[in-house]
Amino acid sequence: MPAPHDTPVSFVAGGAGFIAATLVERLLGEGRTVVAVDNFSRGCRENLGASLESPRLHLIEADLSQATACRGAFAQAAGLGPLDEVWHLAANSDIPAGVKDPGVDLKDTFLTTFELLGAMHAHGVGRLHFASSSAVYGDLGDTVLTENTGPLLPISNYGAMKLASEAQASAAAESHLRRVNIFRFPNVVGVPATHGVVLDFVRKLQHDPQRLDVLGDGTQQKAYLHVSDLVDAMLHVRAMDSARRVEVVNIGPVDEGVTVRWIAQQVVARVSPGAHIAFGTGNKGWVGDVPRFNYSTARLQAWGWTPRLGSAAALQRAIDEVARQLGA
Amino acid sequence: MPAPHDTPVSFVAGGAGFIAATLVERLLGEGRTVVAVDNFSRGCRENLGASLESPRLHLIEADLSQATACRGAFAQAAGLGPLDEVWHLAANSDIPAGVKDPGVDLKDTFLTTFELLGAMHAHGVGRLHFASSSAVYGDLGDTVLTENTGPLLPISNYGAMKLASEAQASAAAESHLRRVNIFRFPNVVGVPATHGVVLDFVRKLQHDPQRLDVLGDGTQQKAYLHVSDLVDAMLHVRAMDSARRVEVVNIGPVDEGVTVRWIAQQVVARVSPGAHIAFGTGNKGWVGDVPRFNYSTARLQAWGWTPRLGSAAALQRAIDEVARQLGA
Repeated sequence: MPAPHDTPVSFVAGGAGFIAATLVERLLGEGRTVVAVDNFSRGCRENLGASLESPRLHLIEADLSQATACRGAFAQAAGLGPLDEVWHLAANSDIPAGVKDPGVDLKDTFLTTFELLGAMHAHGVGRLHFASSSAVYGDLGDTVLTENTGPLLPISNYGAMKLASEAQASAAAESHLRRVNIFRFPNVVGVPATHGVVLDFVRKLQHDPQRLDVLGDGTQQKAYLHVSDLVDAMLHVRAMDSARRVEVVNIGPVDEGVTVRWIAQQVVARVSPGAHIAFGTGNKGWVGDVPRFNYSTARLQAWGWTPRLGSAAALQRAIDEVARQLGA
Repeated sequence: MPAPHDTPVSFVAGGAGFIAATLVERLLGEGRTVVAVDNFSRGCRENLGASLESPRLHLIEADLSQATACRGAFAQAAGLGPLDEVWHLAANSDIPAGVKDPGVDLKDTFLTTFELLGAMHAHGVGRLHFASSSAVYGDLGDTVLTENTGPLLPISNYGAMKLASEAQASAAAESHLRRVNIFRFPNVVGVPATHGVVLDFVRKLQHDPQRLDVLGDGTQQKAYLHVSDLVDAMLHVRAMDSARRVEVVNIGPVDEGVTVRWIAQQVVARVSPGAHIAFGTGNKGWVGDVPRFNYSTARLQAWGWTPRLGSAAALQRAIDEVARQLGA
C-alpha cells in the first residue's frame, strides 16, 4: 500500500454531477489528487469522462447526508495526502421534486452541508467552496440583486436549503473554518447535461419533432452562464487573497439574460427546424420558479473576472453540446 | 366527549418556554383555545403560571422535531376546534450548547420548523408567526441592521438555524401558507427567566455575594426588550392587514442598548450591593456572541408600534422580577 504523499487533496462533494465534471478536470489539471464523492442519485460515473483515466481521481460512492458515510469518505480522502479543501456541489438539482417533497432538499441539499461541515471540523480541513444559488434571493421583483441584498426569502425548498447551507457554513467559519467562499450560481448550461431547460427541450423534440411544449408563456427571462466560465470564476475567487473568512459572490454573465421563448427558438432551429412551439400561460414555469431576475455581478467584475460567453452565446454553445450529447 | 366547537385554536410550539408564557396568557385573554406544545427540555409546566387554570389551555408534551410526534400534536389541536394559526417559539435557546454541538440547533431550532411546516400543510393551517432572531445578521460591524440588510452571515449555529427556518417558511409561503410573519427578536428579558445574562448574574451573586465574574470586558452593548413589549409587538403585527405573504420585521427598542458592564452594576445594586465585579478580557462573551449591534426598528415604528420600555427600563424591571423569581 503506497504511503500518503504530498500531493494536495481536493474533496468534491457531488463529484459526479454536471458542474463537478468540469471542476474535477480542472483540479486534476492543477496536479491535485481529487476525491469525488457522489451518491449517484443524479450524477453518474460517465459524467466524469476523460478524468476517469487519471490515477489521481478517486471516485467514492457515499451518501454524504449520513454522518457515518460522510466521515468514512473523509477518512479515505485524508489517507491519500494533505486534504486541504472541500468543494460542495452536492444538492438536489430537481427544484420541482423538492417542492413536492421538502424532505428531498432537506436531505440532499442541506444535510450534506451539515455533515460535511462536521467532517471538516473533525479532520481540520479549513477551506470550503460552496455552490450556493441565486435562488436564495427569492422573487424580489425588479430589485437589483447584489450580495448585500435582503431580505432573503427563497420561494423554493431548493433555495431555502441553499440559504440554510450558507448560514451553517457561515457559523462554521466563526468556530473552525479558515475560509468559506459562497458562490451564488446563476442558471448554468453545458455538458454533461443532467437537467435544465436545454436538455428538456432537446428531449421533447426528440420525442416529437413536430412540436415543442413550453411551460409558461415563454416570457421568463434569466441569465445563463456556461459551465466552463462558472468553474473559471470559482477558481479565480479561490486564488484571491482575502482578509475575510466568508466571501459571498454572485457568479453570472454581465447581461440581463434571455427569455425562454428565445431558447425554445434556438433549440428548434438546431434540433428540429420548423417545429411548432406551444406556449402555456403565466410567467412562471412551476412553483418556486422566479420569473425575472436582475442579478448583479458587479462584485465579481470588481474582483477582476468577466465571463468569456454572455447568456446568448453560452446557450448557443450549450444547445449544440447537448444536442450532440443526445445524438440529436 | 365534547364535540369540537367554534373557538379558534392557536398552536404554540415551545409553549412552555419563557416568551410563550406571556404569549399564551395573551392568547387565552383573546378567548382562544391554546394548544401549548413543548418537549420540556428547557421549558417547564410551571412557567405557564396562572394560565394553567384555564380550561382552554391544553399542554402537550411532544418533540416537534419528530414527524410522528408533530403530526400527533397537530391532530389533537385540530380536534379541539378551528386551528388557524401556529406560533413557533420552539428553539434551542442555549447558544453555547449549539456551538459545542451543531446537532442541538439542527434538531431543536430547525427541524421543529421543518416538521411544523409539514404538519401545517397536511392540516391546511395558513398562518405562521415565527420567532426568528437578530442573530441571523451575524457580525456586520457598525452596519445599521434593517430587514433589507444582507448578506446574512450568522456566526452561531443558533443564528444559522433561525435563518434556515426563515428560509423554509418563506418557501412554504410560496407553496401552501397564506401568511408568514417573521419576527426577528432582540435580546428579551423578563420572567419566567430560563436563561440569559440577568438570570446568570443573579444566580452567580446568590452563589457568591461578594463577587460577580463577567465573561468578556463588559463593553458588549446590546438592545433589550421586555417580554411584555415583545408579545405586544407580535400581536400588533399579527393584526395588520398586508398584501404580502411574508413579512419580516425587527422587533426591539428604539435605543441602542446598554453594556454588559451596566447590567452587572444594576444586578449588583439590586441583589448584593458592594459586590466586586470581575471582568474578563475581549469584547465577546463566547464564540457566536456578537459584540455590538446597530439594530433598526424603523419598520416596526412605521407600522405604528413603539415599546413602552427602553433597554435600560426593561432591564431594571427584569432584574427586579428575576431577583424575586429566585428569592434573591
